[in-house]
Amino acid sequence: MSSDGTDVRVDYTRVFTQAIDRLHAEGRYRVFIDILRNKGMFPNARCFAGHNGPKPITVWCSNDYLAMGQHPKVIEAMEEALHDVGAGSGGTRNIGGNTHYHIDLEHELADLHGKQSALLFTSGYVSNEATLSTLAKILPGCVIFSDELNHASMIAGIRNAGCEKRIFRHNDLAHLEELLAAEDPAVPKLIAFESVYSMEADVAPIAAICDLADRYNALTYLDEVHAVGMYGERGGGISEQEGVAHRLTIIEGTLGKAFGVMGGYIAADQTIVDVIRSYAPGFIFTTSLSPVLVAGVLASVRHLKSSSVEREGQQASATLLKSMLNDAGLPVMLGDTHIVPILVGDPVKAKRISDILLAEYGVYVQPINYPTVPRGTERLRFTPGPSHTPAMMRELTDALVEIWSRLELRKAA
Amino acid sequence: MSSDGTDVRVDYTRVFTQAIDRLHAEGRYRVFIDILRNKGMFPNARCFAGHNGPKPITVWCSNDYLAMGQHPKVIEAMEEALHDVGAGSGGTRNIGGNTHYHIDLEHELADLHGKQSALLFTSGYVSNEATLSTLAKILPGCVIFSDELNHASMIAGIRNAGCEKRIFRHNDLAHLEELLAAEDPAVPKLIAFESVYSMEADVAPIAAICDLADRYNALTYLDEVHAVGMYGERGGGISEQEGVAHRLTIIEGTLGKAFGVMGGYIAADQTIVDVIRSYAPGFIFTTSLSPVLVAGVLASVRHLKSSSVEREGQQASATLLKSMLNDAGLPVMLGDTHIVPILVGDPVKAKRISDILLAEYGVYVQPINYPTVPRGTERLRFTPGPSHTPAMMRELTDALVEIWSRLELRKAA
Ligand SMILES: Cc1ncc(COP(=O)(O)O)c(C=O)c1O
Ligand SMILES: Cc1ncc(COP(=O)(O)O)c(C=O)c1O
Repeated sequence: MSSDGTDVRVDYTRVFTQAIDRLHAEGRYRVFIDILRNKGMFPNARCFAGHNGPKPITVWCSNDYLAMGQHPKVIEAMEEALHDVGAGSGGTRNIGGNTHYHIDLEHELADLHGKQSALLFTSGYVSNEATLSTLAKILPGCVIFSDELNHASMIAGIRNAGCEKRIFRHNDLAHLEELLAAEDPAVPKLIAFESVYSMEADVAPIAAICDLADRYNALTYLDEVHAVGMYGERGGGISEQEGVAHRLTIIEGTLGKAFGVMGGYIAADQTIVDVIRSYAPGFIFTTSLSPVLVAGVLASVRHLKSSSVEREGQQASATLLKSMLNDAGLPVMLGDTHIVPILVGDPVKAKRISDILLAEYGVYVQPINYPTVPRGTERLRFTPGPSHTPAMMRELTDALVEIWSRLELRKAA
Repeated sequence: MSSDGTDVRVDYTRVFTQAIDRLHAEGRYRVFIDILRNKGMFPNARCFAGHNGPKPITVWCSNDYLAMGQHPKVIEAMEEALHDVGAGSGGTRNIGGNTHYHIDLEHELADLHGKQSALLFTSGYVSNEATLSTLAKILPGCVIFSDELNHASMIAGIRNAGCEKRIFRHNDLAHLEELLAAEDPAVPKLIAFESVYSMEADVAPIAAICDLADRYNALTYLDEVHAVGMYGERGGGISEQEGVAHRLTIIEGTLGKAFGVMGGYIAADQTIVDVIRSYAPGFIFTTSLSPVLVAGVLASVRHLKSSSVEREGQQASATLLKSMLNDAGLPVMLGDTHIVPILVGDPVKAKRISDILLAEYGVYVQPINYPTVPRGTERLRFTPGPSHTPAMMRELTDALVEIWSRLELRKAA
């Protein structure tokens, strides 16, 4: 109580309840769908969504893009590690948690990108957050130039760095150059961007950005999370495909999408990797990746370095699905990548379509709402892979056409 | 070049090289020891440290405190999940990565701490960073009261929150109260602390901190990372052992130490968990924990809820080792916990002792230097577990006594 008798004490429950109410009011409160894959049958899975027992579904929104999460080599490698060394690493990389698997995988990833060194993190998110925030602290006065559609983990790293930042319009070279030119030449600069933007399905002009970096003496940081394993002769990403990997200062990737397991990494020259290894709290103060995961990733990376079957299967599936959806007059966002988004433009409708697909058609695709994409650009995002058959695509297209007419949704222009 | 012809461009390589040179100069450049455990034989392991082939060692610094990382139930559960659903989750919790395993484990962990809900993260580090930074943003004007020896992940969360913070002296109730009393009663407050401080081997006065929280209407956040699985009838941590779990707003733990696998979590009431689930970028925008890991943790948590053999074995080992070291006149930091630190007080000496132990005695213990502990308090930190035998302890003690006299180190007062 305050001196005049009113209760000034904070009502914490009210504040928290209001935070949740805001999400419901905006139609973007998230309910997680409870699923389990079927052994070796992905994209087939089971859904536990409160029905009478699990029901069969087809997963259309996984980032296990190449179905490597069920590849026999990966499963076998993990099983072997599980029996050889056990479940977890038992420590940070510095204190008991540095195994031979970790060292091997770092060599493998450095080689994948043609860099001197690589460094593992517990996730792609942590690799972005830890590396960007640490780099900017090591470079006093650093200014980071960031694409406006960069992933939340890069934004977190840049914010936590506490440095100056300039946001350039998505893939807009002229705008980026304008911002670079406006800066003092004596100031350290870093350009942070992605190769494949996974919600837009488009690709950055990497070589042209490297040209600007050369001209203005800036470092470059490329997130290849949605490209590693999937592009380039050996799965080195768009930077490999376009022959520009050597021009990038740091390449970052995930082990949880096309490689099918979990974890993240950076690849760069030896000194930079050593700086991040030595100074980044998000790398230093955490239990290292389980050797079981690391063993699985090793098998996955090695396989995808020499096999292109999975990549070709994915590209064929994506091309086929895009043309089917397009032919059916659905508002598919066409692009050069493996990702197939359909624009809905409203969070409530996007959720409604997704609910009908799951309940009536056994199709699982998650609506993508703010804050993952800007408000007004809500969408469905399909990720066809080598295991999605033409018959599955036909069923999906027919289902969408039916729902589009039932809900009187806008078709393609 | 600037207009007067001098080159003003940043020399990035120089800046990075200097950052590494500083570490060498201070004697705290870290070299990771390359090890592999032996199947089912932990703490026995192999070391690859540049010798001719791997050589056998005994691990004395693992945080797999109860050797659950090799427990048959854990291994079996992981193997089953690996074959049933595959290597990775393939998505974020919201988009394809929410499996039945995740939901089961969250129920199991909520139950462990007597809370309504729990939420999984990819690591204990991320759970601290994401929860603390998000909480403070949801509570406008929030002030966080933080123990001066809190872990780097809590410090990161508090810093990234951008809120006001007050640091209280380690476990000092009078100082904490002084800081709480100085604050406006209308301001939201959060006290963040740990139960077992793993580098000091001491324990926070939890009940008394909760009394202060009640008096000053503050929320409480307790990191039980070095206590879950190990203390309390069911492994609920020090808060279970002391019967105070219900008084804490949020309890945080890891799945990578006593539970033997990898990952982190919080447990709290349903609304708070829902707020973090809905707003924390570090939870939302990342591939969820591999179902293989989650299955292993489920088995581990369930086992330790009903079995006390591991906990008793660990306590007996810690008691025995402390008395052996103490009787031998070594400067062991005595405390009530399972952790056995020996004070050295110098980074170069700590590293030297550790090097001799590994090279001459096959004993692996990592020196603990700044920034993990304050400068001048460098130490060796032993973590005896149920699988360390009295014979191993005798060998360790004899080795230390020999090294102490060889290097003319200070013995206990
Ligand atoms: C562009 C981008 N970067 C980074 C990440 C984070 O990677 P991870 O899932 O391994 O944490 C994601 C997605 O999760 C992403 O889409
Ligand atoms: C007190 C404390 N909190 C949190 C963590 C981080 O947990 P994790 O290793 O699961 O990231 C650690 C150690 O790693 C710790 O010592």
